[in-house]
Amino acid sequence: MNMVYKKEVIFDEEANSGITLYLNDLCAENELRKKPFILVIPGGGYSYCSDREAEPIALSYVVQGFHAGVLRYHVGKYRDFEKSLQDGKKALDVIEQIDEKFNVSHDKIAIIGFSAGGHLAAAMCTLLKKKPTLCILGYPAILSSFAEVMKISAPSLDQCVSKDTPPTFLFSTFEDNVVPIENSLYYLKALEENDIPFESHIYQKGLHGLSLANSLTGDNPKMIDSRFSHWLNLSCEWMNLNWSHKATTNSCKKSMIESCVQEIISDDRRRQKVLELFPKIQNKSYYKIVRKYTLQQLHHFAPEEFTNDKIKRLTALIQGKNEIG
Amino acid sequence: MNMVYKKEVIFDEEANSGITLYLNDLCAENELRKKPFILVIPGGGYSYCSDREAEPIALSYVVQGFHAGVLRYHVGKYRDFEKSLQDGKKALDVIEQIDEKFNVSHDKIAIIGFSAGGHLAAAMCTLLKKKPTLCILGYPAILSSFAEVMKISAPSLDQCVSKDTPPTFLFSTFEDNVVPIENSLYYLKALEENDIPFESHIYQKGLHGLSLANSLTGDNPKMIDSRFSHWLNLSCEWMNLNWSHKATTNSCKKSMIESCVQEIISDDRRRQKVLELFPKIQNKSYYKIVRKYTLQQLHHFAPEEFTNDKIKRLTALIQGKNEIG
Amino acid sequence: MNMVYKKEVIFDEEANSGITLYLNDLCAENELRKKPFILVIPGGGYSYCSDREAEPIALSYVVQGFHAGVLRYHVGKYRDFEKSLQDGKKALDVIEQIDEKFNVSHDKIAIIGFSAGGHLAAAMCTLLKKKPTLCILGYPAILSSFAEVMKISAPSLDQCVSKDTPPTFLFSTFEDNVVPIENSLYYLKALEENDIPFESHIYQKGLHGLSLANSLTGDNPKMIDSRFSHWLNLSCEWMNLNWSHKATTNSCKKSMIESCVQEIISDDRRRQKVLELFPKIQNKSYYKIVRKYTLQQLHHFAPEEFTNDKIKRLTALIQGKNEIG
Amino acid sequence: MNMVYKKEVIFDEEANSGITLYLNDLCAENELRKKPFILVIPGGGYSYCSDREAEPIALSYVVQGFHAGVLRYHVGKYRDFEKSLQDGKKALDVIEQIDEKFNVSHDKIAIIGFSAGGHLAAAMCTLLKKKPTLCILGYPAILSSFAEVMKISAPSLDQCVSKDTPPTFLFSTFEDNVVPIENSLYYLKALEENDIPFESHIYQKGLHGLSLANSLTGDNPKMIDSRFSHWLNLSCEWMNLNWSHKATTNSCKKSMIESCVQEIISDDRRRQKVLELFPKIQNKSYYKIVRKYTLQQLHHFAPEEFTNDKIKRLTALIQGKNEIG
Repeated sequence: MNMVYKKEVIFDEEANSGITLYLNDLCAENELRKKPFILVIPGGGYSYCSDREAEPIALSYVVQGFHAGVLRYHVGKYRDFEKSLQDGKKALDVIEQIDEKFNVSHDKIAIIGFSAGGHLAAAMCTLLKKKPTLCILGYPAILSSFAEVMKISAPSLDQCVSKDTPPTFLFSTFEDNVVPIENSLYYLKALEENDIPFESHIYQKGLHGLSLANSLTGDNPKMIDSRFSHWLNLSCEWMNLNWSHKATTNSCKKSMIESCVQEIISDDRRRQKVLELFPKIQNKSYYKIVRKYTLQQLHHFAPEEFTNDKIKRLTALIQGKNEIG
Repeated sequence: MNMVYKKEVIFDEEANSGITLYLNDLCAENELRKKPFILVIPGGGYSYCSDREAEPIALSYVVQGFHAGVLRYHVGKYRDFEKSLQDGKKALDVIEQIDEKFNVSHDKIAIIGFSAGGHLAAAMCTLLKKKPTLCILGYPAILSSFAEVMKISAPSLDQCVSKDTPPTFLFSTFEDNVVPIENSLYYLKALEENDIPFESHIYQKGLHGLSLANSLTGDNPKMIDSRFSHWLNLSCEWMNLNWSHKATTNSCKKSMIESCVQEIISDDRRRQKVLELFPKIQNKSYYKIVRKYTLQQLHHFAPEEFTNDKIKRLTALIQGKNEIG
Repeated sequence: MNMVYKKEVIFDEEANSGITLYLNDLCAENELRKKPFILVIPGGGYSYCSDREAEPIALSYVVQGFHAGVLRYHVGKYRDFEKSLQDGKKALDVIEQIDEKFNVSHDKIAIIGFSAGGHLAAAMCTLLKKKPTLCILGYPAILSSFAEVMKISAPSLDQCVSKDTPPTFLFSTFEDNVVPIENSLYYLKALEENDIPFESHIYQKGLHGLSLANSLTGDNPKMIDSRFSHWLNLSCEWMNLNWSHKATTNSCKKSMIESCVQEIISDDRRRQKVLELFPKIQNKSYYKIVRKYTLQQLHHFAPEEFTNDKIKRLTALIQGKNEIG
Repeated sequence: MNMVYKKEVIFDEEANSGITLYLNDLCAENELRKKPFILVIPGGGYSYCSDREAEPIALSYVVQGFHAGVLRYHVGKYRDFEKSLQDGKKALDVIEQIDEKFNVSHDKIAIIGFSAGGHLAAAMCTLLKKKPTLCILGYPAILSSFAEVMKISAPSLDQCVSKDTPPTFLFSTFEDNVVPIENSLYYLKALEENDIPFESHIYQKGLHGLSLANSLTGDNPKMIDSRFSHWLNLSCEWMNLNWSHKATTNSCKKSMIESCVQEIISDDRRRQKVLELFPKIQNKSYYKIVRKYTLQQLHHFAPEEFTNDKIKRLTALIQGKNEIG
């Protein structure tokens, strides 16, 4: 006890796929305190798994109080996107079954992928049924145009984002000389359209593949960047913010007058009536502006559009079904 | 000397538009050292100019070694987007004519705008002929959908970005409850498409209008956020990085074999021939991946596409015009 | 309103002594929110008042939410330690009488002095009857050996520290090439001996007179030091910690068994009896180790010294006066 | 390769003393790049070795690019200060003999000790003949008064500091509830008197035994402190500053006129003459002020003391031995 246990789990001996676990039993004063888990997915263009994005990342999270694992997936002559994706799935299964004595917080399973590993991480968060709780993407490949370059067959992953995609933290550089920054931007846009919470730090300077951007992962001065290296702490802060987030489910029924537009139109019948009276809401950008306000608030902001008369008519139309739910 | 001089310049007395200058003569050991200038443009939905995004911002940059100015533009009953834009232009004129004794670095003029002020800043960087050197946007309004809400007539500014738009630093929050985050994302995409360098920090948490997010600009705990407040130092670092950037103009002529794809196709005649031989380059995303490499490098990466044969044919076709320029 | 008001108060026109006030009316959402005040005392060996340790420091605290003032005291041909000290006293009087509308927190008056200004600040905190609430000393002169070099007549200020000296934050550098670092160490030892809370950051590297150690106060690369420059934020955090400190006065009477050694011996009669039974407590270093524990706790730690028998005898001796107070 | 190798070396099986090595082969792009080594010495009052100050510390330095080791020394029923000190010596011997393939920088061997481990670290840096290159002390016990409490027989280590003691980084808290802060202050004073470079961060708040003060070493909110936790990065920066320090040995002979006072009086014969002419230099505090200046510089600063006449007389007296060395 009071140490980090390193364990290997092999998925496919020939292809050298599997997961290396770093089970963290450090300094748990309270024997029962559970620690979150982070799965590290190195890059390497699906040609290899980069050591610079493997154990250094895992240990960097271990000293921040995480259990960690490093995924080795099908690459090189075993290159096969579907098999790589299955490696990701198997890793999640392994994590689920870690011995109870290691006190893994099973509601706090994050994954972090770099470059091609970011591609695989995004694929796991969009294409797999079982998904991690949070996703971190470092200078990820996203688009099919880049999948082609990596010689794998995969869709543009931004088009696979859905309401089930986990909250995402994305970091990369504008000057990335390998994966064009549009890969990051398309993915952020897809998260936004699906209302998936995200945080994103795109630094202007920096080559592709910076990893930690400190002396642990690079001797070359071009691969050391003290600004970029903040992503590690930022990602830890971000995970804690999401995990400490108080549940804000409103289980109580609210009258329509207390409900915001988004809540009102979640009911299809009401949606139609709202759109009839306030046709501007059909405009997606306009809808995003107004959706979080109640009709009364909107009357205050834009009285000529959200007239008292229209609000009364809407209320009357929906009469008898005043309560949401 | 050795102090900050505060001066008012009035553009339109009735509309209360003008600029407040904070000329920074602090501690210039070397009398000749020039300081950069930053123009602060407060938000307020074109209804008013928010004090929370005015003097506190200017002084925060003054203590980082900047001259600063705060713009007051046409708002409220004088609301008129064209006149506000002209206020911005006049401010740049005033800055250009500051007395030499204050040692303004006239090649280092940045502007920073918040919310509606970010809208005006982005407009200055896209619609004005005379532009600042660098642009900083804090939770900016960009789209015409939001211009409409602010009751001004303005195009979606992302559609106005061009090769002349200055490098941009953008910060905002995913949870912005007033200006939808898509405003930020559309602007970043436009910068990317025009190859304008940018840096962007989008935090997940945080209401609209955080300003400095410290005790200087907010008593309400909801308006204080130590993570978000890093944007100030990040923006200073970013400006310094851009201003210390060594000039990298390649004035010497390069043979085609030494030129990257982007350079080769900058000539229209050659562009056509390149596209004939390598039609995949017509795909915009594919082009972004290959553009910074030479044909020889691409032959190394993707020999089946960039065959030696095709490269030779291209060279022959362009025969007699080997030199770029 | 919503700006910083700069006002001059003159003490002695001929000697050019006085205080420049920076009254901070920025962004007080809640009109009634009070701001702390910090008085800045520049150095200059009592020969002059350094501009590099004046307005740049004041404004740096203003943007952290403080009211500020800069003291100009008797220096150069008006050099006279007693008169300088009176300048300090007058400054505290002026601060006390600032118009109520500026919402000064009169229980939160800090002073910060640099080098010779640190000497004057330490003198104000030890020799004046009216003292500030908190004291910050930057590479201060303390000893009479250095007073002599500055051609003033002043005692070694570490010998003037008393129970009334305010909590102190001290920063300096080991490599200081003007004021030997022993000046800092003697003052810290005096604070410790008087049980005055302090925080101290002594950096190894750095010349004398670094001030903010950023580009605002130095062009010379030797005067810029990103590590040293952290003192500013550290000092703000430290002031907030001291000011938000919950009052921990124990107004309730505690039985002797619940009292720690320090509390028990605060009564002279009991002190004598404690020392008789536990003579090792006469050793100052030993006393510092045990003073915060109760006799029961000490019995647990060191049963052979704090025997149950002795503890019972002490209780019996003090019989009839069990209650502290 | 590309991983951290953990190895045990046992000194005394019965007493469970020995060293655990963490040999860091992570991401050495350049196979020949050497890494510094840090030896971690946990506290525990010589009763036990605290897990909270062992592997978490070692791994935290590993991810900063260090090789690391954890020392287990004689404690509890094997408590014996001399044997503990020999354990420290053996650890340095083991480090010296680590296989060349691990690329240890043998001129960069640091040790870090906490509390009683800080006592042992300070003892190694003062009492052993073979010493580490740099020393880091966390809330250390120093004085014999505390040695007595820990039931070991050891001198006050501040009294053992000499010219051979390595540069030292010391961090602790004023409010330490176990080891009185005077322990730190006496050690700093001893370093100063011996002109040993040091850096020191004494935070006001914080209980004894904070270790990393993050979630890795404490569940209890009282043991988490984001300000205190900066010591880790500060210590890494400090080690790098000391190790990158350019050699400044002046091998060339300098004329007396170019030499500073400290250099002049390093010769005993000259020392006597200097003290005759400038008796104030006998005062230790005065000497510390002037020692780094040449006589000409001192003439400029204090012409009435360092008169041209006296300087000429000194030069004449030393006539025939003008050159230093």
